[in-house]
Amino acid sequence: MSERVYRVVQYGMGPIGQELARLALERRSYELVGAIDIDPAKVGRDVGELLGLEGPVGVLVRADAEAVLAETRPDCVLHTTGSYLDRVFPQLESIVRAGCNVVSTCEELSFPAAGHPELAARLDGLAREYGVTVLGTGVNPGYVMDTLPLFFSGVAQQVTAVRVERIQNASTRRKPLQEKIGSGKTVEEFQQLAAAGTVRHVGLRESAYLIAAGLGWRIERYEERIEPVIAERRIETRYFTVEPGRVCGVDQLGRAFVEGEERITLHLRMYLDADPAYDRVLLEGTTPLELVIPGGLQGDRATTAIALNAVPRVVAHAPGLVTMVDLPIITVRS
Amino acid sequence: MSERVYRVVQYGMGPIGQELARLALERRSYELVGAIDIDPAKVGRDVGELLGLEGPVGVLVRADAEAVLAETRPDCVLHTTGSYLDRVFPQLESIVRAGCNVVSTCEELSFPAAGHPELAARLDGLAREYGVTVLGTGVNPGYVMDTLPLFFSGVAQQVTAVRVERIQNASTRRKPLQEKIGSGKTVEEFQQLAAAGTVRHVGLRESAYLIAAGLGWRIERYEERIEPVIAERRIETRYFTVEPGRVCGVDQLGRAFVEGEERITLHLRMYLDADPAYDRVLLEGTTPLELVIPGGLQGDRATTAIALNAVPRVVAHAPGLVTMVDLPIITVRS
Ligand SMILES: NC(=O)c1ccc[n+]([C@@H]2O[C@H](COP(=O)([O-])OP(=O)(O)OC[C@H]3O[C@@H](n4cnc5c(N)ncnc54)[C@H](OP(=O)(O)O)[C@@H]3O)[C@@H](O)[C@H]2O)c1
Ligand SMILES: NC(=O)c1ccc[n+]([C@@H]2O[C@H](COP(=O)([O-])OP(=O)(O)OC[C@H]3O[C@@H](n4cnc5c(N)ncnc54)[C@H](OP(=O)(O)O)[C@@H]3O)[C@@H](O)[C@H]2O)c1
Repeated sequence: MSERVYRVVQYGMGPIGQELARLALERRSYELVGAIDIDPAKVGRDVGELLGLEGPVGVLVRADAEAVLAETRPDCVLHTTGSYLDRVFPQLESIVRAGCNVVSTCEELSFPAAGHPELAARLDGLAREYGVTVLGTGVNPGYVMDTLPLFFSGVAQQVTAVRVERIQNASTRRKPLQEKIGSGKTVEEFQQLAAAGTVRHVGLRESAYLIAAGLGWRIERYEERIEPVIAERRIETRYFTVEPGRVCGVDQLGRAFVEGEERITLHLRMYLDADPAYDRVLLEGTTPLELVIPGGLQGDRATTAIALNAVPRVVAHAPGLVTMVDLPIITVRS
Repeated sequence: MSERVYRVVQYGMGPIGQELARLALERRSYELVGAIDIDPAKVGRDVGELLGLEGPVGVLVRADAEAVLAETRPDCVLHTTGSYLDRVFPQLESIVRAGCNVVSTCEELSFPAAGHPELAARLDGLAREYGVTVLGTGVNPGYVMDTLPLFFSGVAQQVTAVRVERIQNASTRRKPLQEKIGSGKTVEEFQQLAAAGTVRHVGLRESAYLIAAGLGWRIERYEERIEPVIAERRIETRYFTVEPGRVCGVDQLGRAFVEGEERITLHLRMYLDADPAYDRVLLEGTTPLELVIPGGLQGDRATTAIALNAVPRVVAHAPGLVTMVDLPIITVRS
């Protein structure tokens, strides 16, 4: 696996897609052979120019996904256009029908059986039919609140409950994320947007179901609540200025019940200027086990890293729709 | 995988083997169908009695490994008799020839190509011939100083160096381990035993080579040094009393050089009453990543956990000699 070069197409050139393209260009195990986006402000531009690199890289952003895939025939597509499986499903379907493996950062794809069992089954069938592998991953969902606690459980003699806490400093994150957590809104606006599903982090449910699947647990009930985090003083980021009393982020709690007890608790606080930021996994049982990532994984960097690092594992895997617990450990390659 | 019950034979009934047998008896996904040891003090005794359980469990410790395996035909053998691959090789060979999968805590088996490339190739060939899978694992080597940093590297955009520090409180460990770190010896005795290879932790080299394999690095040079840790005051454990000035543990440093630079540093301090104990992984690169396990993984519990938890993955895997980076994530099952 060390010598091989993986030919990848970047599908979706938002901040995450651009960072992935930049990484693929930098790393010698990967070759960027195509770029897809429908945003008129991006279509037709050279990826190097879009990324602010010194010169063009010879790959233009194009809107016609099928043509790009047919012409480039990549080993894997890096898909980063949206969070909801029903909306991105047609894109995934066309990638699979083009005979390409896919790694996607679509949150709901990290454990699609949780929210869309029928779409998951269809995608799995299609992937097998076309002989390709489909994976949803990212930092969260995909790693810090699901795969990491599962990996940690390997050294546990017994686990009776999984508690994960992620306190993320959103000031270091990309603009769409600062937007998605309600930065600058009033509490009322936040409540309305949260009720409409516009303001919130997507993926806690997927993480809970992925954990349960990995541990062989059956979730009887899943509950989630969302609350705003309120700025105590003026906050300025690259993208937003938030006055005291306004919303500066989200506090989300996902709770899964197994055999009548709350056995999975996922607590995410993602807000501007969060300090201290950290990720923490606690496995309860006869011997409780604790793991801490001081400072916390920076979500955009970690997401692009794991998505690109997953490519060799996805390419090597048997066809089908897979999750992070199906693959061998993903490591970084040069 | 959740409903299946795995029939296991415990091979080696020292402290680690006994703890593994106890775990297998407790967990509903496993059934203990046989026990093997050559120690005359154990042979012929019921495992329940040996473990101090309330009553017999109907499994006797027997010395004739081949007969036990032929009669019980287990899904997997849990092998815990020794640290050196050349010494345990005949045992592993007979297990493989009996058509059984194996999970072993033999330290050198965690990355056998590091110290015994020829034996590794022979074992791999035999395993393929007999259609079984062979894995070496444990907490260290096997997890905390190798697989964990590799798993963590999955969310890194780049890793230029891996530094792992493990400060383990040996007072909580089994007797053979407290012995193996030189507890109670004079500094001179320690130096002699260390030179003879009797006193030391085995496995830092295997961890370094496993990390390198996972990251696609080629180690040009590997160095290891060992020093005693000296008791500053009187220490009493269940097994040893150590006066001030005497040895209470080891300080070992493994260093691997890649492209002329020290890119893997493994620092193990394992001594009586170590406080604070912890495990710490640092991945250097453009964005350094840090992970901490406060208190540190208790080695005996974590080793038996990962060995038993590995069984479903080993049984499901294609035949051959595998390492921890070949298997999907190992999780705890009930
Ligand atoms: N799992 C995780 O941990 C994780 C972490 C980070 C991000 N994510 C997710 O990854 C996705 C990408 O993040 P982002 O911040 O880069 O999002 P973004 O800013 O919404 O970028 C998406 C890009 O894809 C384009 N696009 C939308 N529909 C398309 C289509 N049908 N064909 C081609 N291009 C299309 C968009 O163009 P328009 O602007 O014209 O719509 C935009 O340029 C998001 O859904 C985000 O939530 C997941
Ligand atoms: N990778 C890791 O992280 C990790 C962690 C913990 C332990 N380990 C290793 O796992 C092994 C087991 O640990 P332990 O503390 O239980 O060791 P131990 O006290 O040496 O126990 C080994 C047992 O196996 C028996 N035995 C030796 N040769 C045998 C043979 N040919 N056939 C059948 N039985 C045999 C021994 O009997 P006698 O006493 O008569 O020789 C003893 O009862 C050690 O090598 C240890 O270093 C690895």
